[in-house]
Amino acid sequence: MPEPSELMSLCKRRGFVWPSYEIYGGVAGMFDYGPLGCVMKDNIIKIWRSIYKGREGFIEIDSETVNPIPVFKASGHVDEFSDLITYCEECREPFRADHLAEGLHDNPDTLTAKDIDIILRKNDVVCPECGGRLGNAEEFNLMFKTSIGPGSSRVGFLRPETAQGIFVNYLNLYRYNREKLPLGVIQTGRGYRNEIAPRQGMIRMREFNMMEVELFVDPDDKDWVRFHEIENEYMTLIPQDGKEITVTVGDSVKQGIIANRVLAYFVYTTQQFMMSLGLDPERMRFRQHLSDEMAHYAADCWDAEALLSYGWTEITGIADRGCWDLSRHAEFSGSDLTHFRKFGEPREIEKDVLKAKHKALGPKFKEKAKMIVTAIESKLPEDVKNNSLTIDVDGEAITLGEEFFEVASIKEKISGERVTPHVIEPSHGLDRIFYTILEHAYSYDEKDDYVTLRLKPNVAPVKAGVFPLMDKDGLDVLAFSIYESLRKSGIEAYYDTSGAIGRRYARMDEIGTPWCITVDYGSVEEGEHKGTVTLRDRDTREQKRIKASEAGKIISEMLSGKTF
Amino acid sequence: MPEPSELMSLCKRRGFVWPSYEIYGGVAGMFDYGPLGCVMKDNIIKIWRSIYKGREGFIEIDSETVNPIPVFKASGHVDEFSDLITYCEECREPFRADHLAEGLHDNPDTLTAKDIDIILRKNDVVCPECGGRLGNAEEFNLMFKTSIGPGSSRVGFLRPETAQGIFVNYLNLYRYNREKLPLGVIQTGRGYRNEIAPRQGMIRMREFNMMEVELFVDPDDKDWVRFHEIENEYMTLIPQDGKEITVTVGDSVKQGIIANRVLAYFVYTTQQFMMSLGLDPERMRFRQHLSDEMAHYAADCWDAEALLSYGWTEITGIADRGCWDLSRHAEFSGSDLTHFRKFGEPREIEKDVLKAKHKALGPKFKEKAKMIVTAIESKLPEDVKNNSLTIDVDGEAITLGEEFFEVASIKEKISGERVTPHVIEPSHGLDRIFYTILEHAYSYDEKDDYVTLRLKPNVAPVKAGVFPLMDKDGLDVLAFSIYESLRKSGIEAYYDTSGAIGRRYARMDEIGTPWCITVDYGSVEEGEHKGTVTLRDRDTREQKRIKASEAGKIISEMLSGKTF
Repeated sequence: MPEPSELMSLCKRRGFVWPSYEIYGGVAGMFDYGPLGCVMKDNIIKIWRSIYKGREGFIEIDSETVNPIPVFKASGHVDEFSDLITYCEECREPFRADHLAEGLHDNPDTLTAKDIDIILRKNDVVCPECGGRLGNAEEFNLMFKTSIGPGSSRVGFLRPETAQGIFVNYLNLYRYNREKLPLGVIQTGRGYRNEIAPRQGMIRMREFNMMEVELFVDPDDKDWVRFHEIENEYMTLIPQDGKEITVTVGDSVKQGIIANRVLAYFVYTTQQFMMSLGLDPERMRFRQHLSDEMAHYAADCWDAEALLSYGWTEITGIADRGCWDLSRHAEFSGSDLTHFRKFGEPREIEKDVLKAKHKALGPKFKEKAKMIVTAIESKLPEDVKNNSLTIDVDGEAITLGEEFFEVASIKEKISGERVTPHVIEPSHGLDRIFYTILEHAYSYDEKDDYVTLRLKPNVAPVKAGVFPLMDKDGLDVLAFSIYESLRKSGIEAYYDTSGAIGRRYARMDEIGTPWCITVDYGSVEEGEHKGTVTLRDRDTREQKRIKASEAGKIISEMLSGKTF
Repeated sequence: MPEPSELMSLCKRRGFVWPSYEIYGGVAGMFDYGPLGCVMKDNIIKIWRSIYKGREGFIEIDSETVNPIPVFKASGHVDEFSDLITYCEECREPFRADHLAEGLHDNPDTLTAKDIDIILRKNDVVCPECGGRLGNAEEFNLMFKTSIGPGSSRVGFLRPETAQGIFVNYLNLYRYNREKLPLGVIQTGRGYRNEIAPRQGMIRMREFNMMEVELFVDPDDKDWVRFHEIENEYMTLIPQDGKEITVTVGDSVKQGIIANRVLAYFVYTTQQFMMSLGLDPERMRFRQHLSDEMAHYAADCWDAEALLSYGWTEITGIADRGCWDLSRHAEFSGSDLTHFRKFGEPREIEKDVLKAKHKALGPKFKEKAKMIVTAIESKLPEDVKNNSLTIDVDGEAITLGEEFFEVASIKEKISGERVTPHVIEPSHGLDRIFYTILEHAYSYDEKDDYVTLRLKPNVAPVKAGVFPLMDKDGLDVLAFSIYESLRKSGIEAYYDTSGAIGRRYARMDEIGTPWCITVDYGSVEEGEHKGTVTLRDRDTREQKRIKASEAGKIISEMLSGKTF
């Protein structure tokens, strides 16, 4: 495995990723995607879309990143999305309290402020910077805060996840889907987390990229239409008991390891996604969240973890969020965020209702009687308290005794009922996946001091290097025209004329370019090779001659899976 | 032209665009892209990329949206990016002062706070909400403000433009481009502008989407390699004198209307881009900024304006930003943000340098003499003050008289010089372009009360509607398999089984779907039509039969330009 610093230096040197604002001293936890990184990130998104939109037929939205406070009151982030912070009382440096307690407790990020204070005191932990005394730990909310519009009255936050933008649009989405479930929605975009003291490079960013999937399902139908296609496939799981097992998708549900079939299907879908990105299966696993580790909204949650030089790292979470989000937004907004579940055929139900006793009401209330009848019958049996019922007529409260109403049992035909959908959420950390791809693809040959990124062609930012053997004699003209025609047909290519050809291959191998095209004298001089170029494979270093005019077609075919 | 409310209601109903946070009462100036809008927005970005990356070979980056304050001190946004605000002294409602002065001055947004106060007082303008007295106008900075990390000491802003993320990465980009100019960089992503009181729907959003292009050029070489390809093409321009003219690209430069060839090339490129998006050429023009309207950084600026129901509206700005941005960031960061311009061949220059007089120094300074010689010769002639020179040797300041040094003229060969690149910037408002496409494509047939969106196929969010004539008898099975195969091959399709076929065509016409495929009984029953389906064209309503198995191929070909 490469050292993070080695890989990040390659990333920086070659234009994958740059620490942000370096000319101003940088900001911890922020990175910009350079030209190669930007394309590779896009390639990842394309593959993700091909699975969720192409295969599953989900829909995609793009919602705003600045949200007004009610959204995160409802979602729980205003109250729950925080880390414990402690400041050095001398140098005022802030620290994550749970990081200072690492090694002193099994799971320091589950501790309360009080408990962590006790542990830090008992172990004489002092400020790592100056040795000063540490203050008491306190909650630090991790959302970036701002104000919307003039004045500071309208508080806004940068979203910590793209998911909420989907939940608050549930009604729009449900209508778009013609009021049917399942309803699968995806969104990619920025998420923000105002880390106290970010470390671990791209693994912990203050501004990051997500690819989230929110699948709304009927709470009584947690199956999936294509489950049978994958139920005999294997996954490596670490359930809550901590013992790694390899099991089929079908058995994982039958044995009660994964809560239901739709969740299991998308755990496996995540595995498929990771494999199509070229991650090393030996360095991948799924770990179930322990109950004290689970987010406030989750009913069951599995992390896709990758083995990195930082250790096992969560790169995707697949959660059954239950009805948490929609219930909360319904409660806080007063909107009806349910699904109308139609019965196969209408059902007759018996229910108790209030009936007015017209004969008693008429004489007593005269012209008001009609309004009182309506008011009584709009009430429910449970509104009757101490055998009397209080109604509101034209702003006047009237309390009626049992002589004016009765509880009657009626039969009613209903065509369905309203239920709050449950949400299955595969949530991907795009930057972490990006970084994992690089670590898993990184291969270093010590003997030759030679780096090759063994990126899958569909992920690689550059598909083809194009070189004239010499930058003259028409070799350059032909090579440049091949480069331009590849580029114009949407194939990312890189034109390079400088240095020995071996050096140019090395530069392409280092950024994971799967193929290189070289124009040599044979390509332009009379003879059997005229009009042909060499095509070189990154991993085998094999070369063959192809027609220059077919370069684009051949590369397209290989991108669709044809072998070299 | 449709009323904005009519079009926005279509957008909302059909899933193009939704006002954000509606269940919480909404936030002015914020919109979410629904399933159709999200795809259409992506289609616009793809076309933009095909021009700038595909045709021009520019590179793309993706930088962070939260920026630390020094970035915007340097860019001028902390001081200059503001509107004048006035609060009603009674109801405390905030207003844009220049909006209140509309009709009272030709160009109210160019006025100072003082001048606008005078105009509002003189015209007895009062609070439009309650009739109360208005307070004095003051500057309101339009950047969303936040804090990075714990404490409030590290101020951050949400970027008002993506451009600065490119400028602060100039050194990385310049190195990536092997220290060559021109260097073209594109970026798409969010921009933020904390409007005082947004109105005009998608035209003025607080959180919006941009597509920006920053082209770094040698200040002495403002030509473009492909200029000759387009110099005889026509553009409609409104220069500063306000008189509309139609002129070739070449003549616009020759006649001094547009400042230089590279700027003119990208004004024309913008026109090409707008045409390929399907905007109505009759409702497009380029208007030159008046000098008092130009942004603080611009040397020349042209707005691409579209005629909308709101009036003529800027949808893209093409500016020559000169050396403003790089000079400022160089000044504020202390970094060297220049280009090394190599001369064709080395030049000999004469220059004055300081020479030490060894003979005088030796006896006086003994073993220190050598260090003093070095110190003298690292100084410049302009460091000599009153015939003496002060140098620093090992922390000690020594002042030397003319007996110890002399000014000598020497000849030196230099291979180039450092210059600060100029920046040409086509900056596109993605949401405005999106909205303009919809307005220009909107077509309403009053007689039939029938809406058709005449979207170009490459822009349309759905390429094909797929319908079984009846939802049974195997028609549904064939139709659904066509739908799935289109979707899996990346062609956006929409499956619809509900209602009369005419109603289904109407639903597709309303969202601009260019083609519809219908499976009828002929498709599945024995006979000449077996295995075929009908293909319908949106604009001509013509229908023809095609092989079901070739639907994907035929639609792909039409997307590449083949006619129906």
